[in-house]
Amino acid sequence: MLPVFGHLNPDTDAIASALVYARLLSRQGIDAQAYRLGDLNFETPFVLRKAGVEAPPLLPLLEAGTAVALVDHNERAQSAPNLADLEVTRVVDHHKLGDLTTMQPAFLRFEPVGCTATLLLKLHREARLKVEQADAWLMLSAILSDTLHFRSPTTTPDDREAVAFLAPVAGLRDVAAYALEMFAAKSDLGDTPAAELLKMDYKVFPFGEPAAPQPVQRWGLGVIETTNPGYVFGRQAELLDAMRAARVADGLDGVLLGVVDILNETNRLLVAGEAEAAVVQQVFGAATVGGVADLGNRISRKKQIVPALEKHFETQS
Amino acid sequence: MLPVFGHLNPDTDAIASALVYARLLSRQGIDAQAYRLGDLNFETPFVLRKAGVEAPPLLPLLEAGTAVALVDHNERAQSAPNLADLEVTRVVDHHKLGDLTTMQPAFLRFEPVGCTATLLLKLHREARLKVEQADAWLMLSAILSDTLHFRSPTTTPDDREAVAFLAPVAGLRDVAAYALEMFAAKSDLGDTPAAELLKMDYKVFPFGEPAAPQPVQRWGLGVIETTNPGYVFGRQAELLDAMRAARVADGLDGVLLGVVDILNETNRLLVAGEAEAAVVQQVFGAATVGGVADLGNRISRKKQIVPALEKHFETQS
Repeated sequence: MLPVFGHLNPDTDAIASALVYARLLSRQGIDAQAYRLGDLNFETPFVLRKAGVEAPPLLPLLEAGTAVALVDHNERAQSAPNLADLEVTRVVDHHKLGDLTTMQPAFLRFEPVGCTATLLLKLHREARLKVEQADAWLMLSAILSDTLHFRSPTTTPDDREAVAFLAPVAGLRDVAAYALEMFAAKSDLGDTPAAELLKMDYKVFPFGEPAAPQPVQRWGLGVIETTNPGYVFGRQAELLDAMRAARVADGLDGVLLGVVDILNETNRLLVAGEAEAAVVQQVFGAATVGGVADLGNRISRKKQIVPALEKHFETQS
Repeated sequence: MLPVFGHLNPDTDAIASALVYARLLSRQGIDAQAYRLGDLNFETPFVLRKAGVEAPPLLPLLEAGTAVALVDHNERAQSAPNLADLEVTRVVDHHKLGDLTTMQPAFLRFEPVGCTATLLLKLHREARLKVEQADAWLMLSAILSDTLHFRSPTTTPDDREAVAFLAPVAGLRDVAAYALEMFAAKSDLGDTPAAELLKMDYKVFPFGEPAAPQPVQRWGLGVIETTNPGYVFGRQAELLDAMRAARVADGLDGVLLGVVDILNETNRLLVAGEAEAAVVQQVFGAATVGGVADLGNRISRKKQIVPALEKHFETQS
């Protein structure tokens, strides 16, 4: 049985793509099972209910040498803790290629599209498999989630075409209304502890010269995409405390938390301390005032935040 | 203009796939140009003449930051000398994933098939592009070359299907006769200096724990696939001298040269020295007698030689 899983601190794409890819492989005669690497965020249960699908179980510790399939990530720091000892035989992803290696030739499908699910639709088509209704729900929800309903600069024509194709298969008539409902579910953060809010969509990135044996710095970069940024800034002091605690606990060089206003397409960054503020000033030309730096319309961690930091630290090393 | 190139010491797949992928990208509106990373072997000019295609030019030194597309390889040691400074935006390959990283999300298409050209045929189909006759010649020749006309254990049903599809497009009726002609061209080694014979199909592999900052050992592994092994063993002493010289000159830990008898599907290994002989005994259970170790039907460097050595050195580290 081939375990299929997305990244730590799973978002809707990580969960939906694991479910859809495991089912696609099963239909192609490969015994596969979806797993998750952490708790669901507030958006994903809403999506799973709409699709009528159960959440995948938590990934158990896998024995060394187990064959696995990755979706929506490829870096060790974002994956199963013992990924280096597992045999990665398949990856479907839309992120930059990090420190992944394989022991044998493998199936890798990476494209610079807005969402892993967009690639899964292509795989269905190439295998001439009809998309099932639940899979259509999962894929279109993942695409709307990852691209913020096409607001993100990561959006490509392939993502738009995929949603246009999938909506009738899912039986969804008003895509815009559904996306708003989904974002409202995501924004209903209730009394979630600040440390959890920080880690809900959070990834650790090693920065430095790619050929160097060790990264120069490791940063934790969180994002809260919300239709209600006022709620998040109401909890700013707690969140900044949680960020500083994470920096110490995880031995990081910096922690940032982007608060993305989905509807207005703006990003205000919570900045954990002075060291981070200096980097944010240098890299993004944005001053930190009262713990907050305004990044304007740079709302994509993947396309706008990470590459800029990467370039900065690469030239430092 | 996007440079497209295969590995150092190019074989027919490295050259053919660069030409075909550059043309495919051009037909999709991406200005691309094929290059080669070294002299042609004895088989490739025969193939290019049949296809009516010129050899691609040698890759010039590219400026840091230039976007490039790789075919048939992904490891730095087998690529342009300054690959780490280039921006890899596309890779089509059928080898294991090595030390490649990308700065941005990229197009990666890896599948464990017998030949890169098999994947290029899939890309034509997915783009709904008719295969041109010259491209059909190049792709089918590359597949016959890489799989030794389906004799290699790397052969998959996709490779066989590709050749069956491409032969009529190329206008080729007798595939078996053409493959024999191609192998005869490859085997006509004339008075090529031994150092050149060694490097004709030769790759340097780092071995060791994948997560380790430095490889434990670096080995040079050459292959001569021939219908006339008697010729090669007639030059055994010269070749062993060339292997020992390469070990010193390139600072390697070991050098091996597989002499593959294409028609009988056997592999006799030239073994440069006692250190190599000890590893060959341990890993393959084959004794070295008079500089030669008989590997029987283990004819695939990619599938049978490299993974076994990799496993050996990984457990050493």
